[in-house]
Amino acid sequence: MSDKEISQAVIIRLPRYFRYLGELIDEGYERISSKELSERMHITASQVRQDLNLFGGFGQQGYGYNVKELHEEIGKILGLDRKHNLIIIGAGNLGQALANYMNFEKRGFLIKGIFDQYPERCNVNVRGLQIHSMNELETFIADNAIDIAVLTIPKSAALETSKRLVACGIGAIWNFAHVDLDVPENVVVENVHLSDSLMKLSYRFHCMKEQNEDL
Amino acid sequence: MSDKEISQAVIIRLPRYFRYLGELIDEGYERISSKELSERMHITASQVRQDLNLFGGFGQQGYGYNVKELHEEIGKILGLDRKHNLIIIGAGNLGQALANYMNFEKRGFLIKGIFDQYPERCNVNVRGLQIHSMNELETFIADNAIDIAVLTIPKSAALETSKRLVACGIGAIWNFAHVDLDVPENVVVENVHLSDSLMKLSYRFHCMKEQNEDL
Repeated sequence: MSDKEISQAVIIRLPRYFRYLGELIDEGYERISSKELSERMHITASQVRQDLNLFGGFGQQGYGYNVKELHEEIGKILGLDRKHNLIIIGAGNLGQALANYMNFEKRGFLIKGIFDQYPERCNVNVRGLQIHSMNELETFIADNAIDIAVLTIPKSAALETSKRLVACGIGAIWNFAHVDLDVPENVVVENVHLSDSLMKLSYRFHCMKEQNEDL
Repeated sequence: MSDKEISQAVIIRLPRYFRYLGELIDEGYERISSKELSERMHITASQVRQDLNLFGGFGQQGYGYNVKELHEEIGKILGLDRKHNLIIIGAGNLGQALANYMNFEKRGFLIKGIFDQYPERCNVNVRGLQIHSMNELETFIADNAIDIAVLTIPKSAALETSKRLVACGIGAIWNFAHVDLDVPENVVVENVHLSDSLMKLSYRFHCMKEQNEDL
């Protein structure tokens, strides 16, 4: 199934379905109706049915969805049934936070190494992983079949580093640097621009304050 | 201007305009045409004109936009001309990373305090800020006129904590916990669901691989 066939809006919702279905499994649910799922997720039941039909429709009328099956199927669509080898570039607080987040491993994202410009300055122990020097980047990527690089470095270093990653044939970059990377079309970039998110919060906060004052 | 008058899509783009205009200022630009700006941002010039017209249109035909003025105006729309008092709840790596990110202060987001369930276990020094116990939460929010709370705590603690924040009259929550909060409509929640973002990357990565294999 190609990226183009599924709208961006549905893709954004898929991880959320996956998360809710995971919670349902933890709570012991075996089946769930589109109505019940939609109420939990604060979306409409027809939206749920429409989204899930796109992937072949796992539901049965009057019977609902098999929670475990649906969770597995969406996991497969998201590529979570496969293993991914990750490196994190930037051993600061954010890099460490991501490296220590065990749930990523559970989903098949295996952190193989952490890199920093000044490995000797990094007084950290992240799950026993050694902090590598940036000089080792190219060799390490080749030797460890790295698919995904996570960038938690300042903007100033991100552009040059992304060029090195592209030259190594890296497939995807999870970018936390506050800059839009300029990479070829066949390299997937997923941005987490935290300051953009905070500004959006600020905007909505002030709109809300003005609305409340108008009342 | 109310939230309802401006589409969500435009709001998402505003911080990006703000970021690019900030870079142009740093590079010494005084004016920029919609064409030039659009090329930098990889969107169409008509999109730029349409977006910026929504806010009163700061451009002049054949003259372009005054970069500094436009940056300031968008900053005002985003509420960045005001000061916001923040607290961070959760003194782990992610909480520390956010607390140490100086650019937030530059934009008027002042981190007044950091809270943790076990402050005595936190062997951290985040810019001289004391780590407070969760018992002090309500008093601290009232005494320091806190507007925004940042949640960097596990899912299991996030729901109860968000209820306490709402009861204190907090206006906005920047939520990094992997759960959708259930708060009243007048409380703004901006989610950063990192695992959702990583799954989206995974999905797009596999679509891209399949496309490349098809070629």
